[in-house]
Amino acid sequence: MSGNPMFNISYGLYVLTANNGQKDNGCIINTVTQVTSEPNQITLAVNKGNHTHDMIMDTKDFTVSVVSEAADFELFKHFGFCSGREMDKFKDFTAVERTANGTLAVTKGTNAYISGRVTQAWDVGSHTIFLADVVDSKILSAVKSATYGYYQEQIKPRPQATAKGKTIWRCTVCGYEYEGEELPEGYICPLCKHGAADFEKVTG
Amino acid sequence: MSGNPMFNISYGLYVLTANNGQKDNGCIINTVTQVTSEPNQITLAVNKGNHTHDMIMDTKDFTVSVVSEAADFELFKHFGFCSGREMDKFKDFTAVERTANGTLAVTKGTNAYISGRVTQAWDVGSHTIFLADVVDSKILSAVKSATYGYYQEQIKPRPQATAKGKTIWRCTVCGYEYEGEELPEGYICPLCKHGAADFEKVTG
Repeated sequence: MSGNPMFNISYGLYVLTANNGQKDNGCIINTVTQVTSEPNQITLAVNKGNHTHDMIMDTKDFTVSVVSEAADFELFKHFGFCSGREMDKFKDFTAVERTANGTLAVTKGTNAYISGRVTQAWDVGSHTIFLADVVDSKILSAVKSATYGYYQEQIKPRPQATAKGKTIWRCTVCGYEYEGEELPEGYICPLCKHGAADFEKVTG
Repeated sequence: MSGNPMFNISYGLYVLTANNGQKDNGCIINTVTQVTSEPNQITLAVNKGNHTHDMIMDTKDFTVSVVSEAADFELFKHFGFCSGREMDKFKDFTAVERTANGTLAVTKGTNAYISGRVTQAWDVGSHTIFLADVVDSKILSAVKSATYGYYQEQIKPRPQATAKGKTIWRCTVCGYEYEGEELPEGYICPLCKHGAADFEKVTG
């Protein structure tokens, strides 16, 4: 049977936010886990390329807002497909609530938030794993949490049929399409920044 | 709005297996995350009370078999509700395949396995977080992965209506029912070993 066994691991989706005293910023992650309940501790793995990663390294404070099935693709584009280094993601984004640790929770397309204070940061290569104490949390909606599988099937736009005889490489994370027989070496998705391993070849 | 925000985090479900040279053993966990793709590394948080935890501390080798929607409650009872210290869970359990690192994958009610070699172990209190290199993996079935939400709604037996005037405390993890007005202090579910925080009060 074909396929990538790693894709069978289930994840939720989260807007991860931080504030460095100058501004608020956020990105999309899928790697939040409650690791102990007494005390209440969570881990999150965050790509070092994210501006939010560096803000959390500095301040240790963050909030994860749990994306629900009510979320639309705009939420993912807004927080997932561009960097806070180049824009202020919260400039005109008003569906927010400031939590106990001074960071922002996103209150639209989400069903809960969990604010944390980092106690450990482990370098694992491309990502840092943060261990954190939960310092605040709140239920925002009764809508179910969106799993990554739900995002793939229900939220991400359906791809258009590929023109006959044409070959494209499609990013399985965000749907971006690269036209050409082969992906350039070391190609990174211009939208969501995932690598060549996340692209699939489609021929029309 | 009421409810526990921590319950909005999404998880998959996994049979975690190890072999200490004398025997194979396994338990159920929900905390597997791919943390980097190059190199391919995963983390898992495992309760120190699990026999499998100690075997992995010793040998560093394990397999996680991804539970699918084809799994029945028996799989959870078999691997989740008793300890390998008291029984040989693989004695009459034949739906297995030995993977590249010498541990067993469970091939029934699962859709993939991922074998790992531990490179770091972080003590976070009641649990250890293992960081591991993926050394082997395979797709076993095209059935979807079971999320913890799916287990709660579709796999766990539906509770019976509580008799009128009676009060019970029900374990939200496995469904075990304790009869009485109050749970004893420090109560642990005799079936799945989760604590009082995972029980809900139900009155008939």
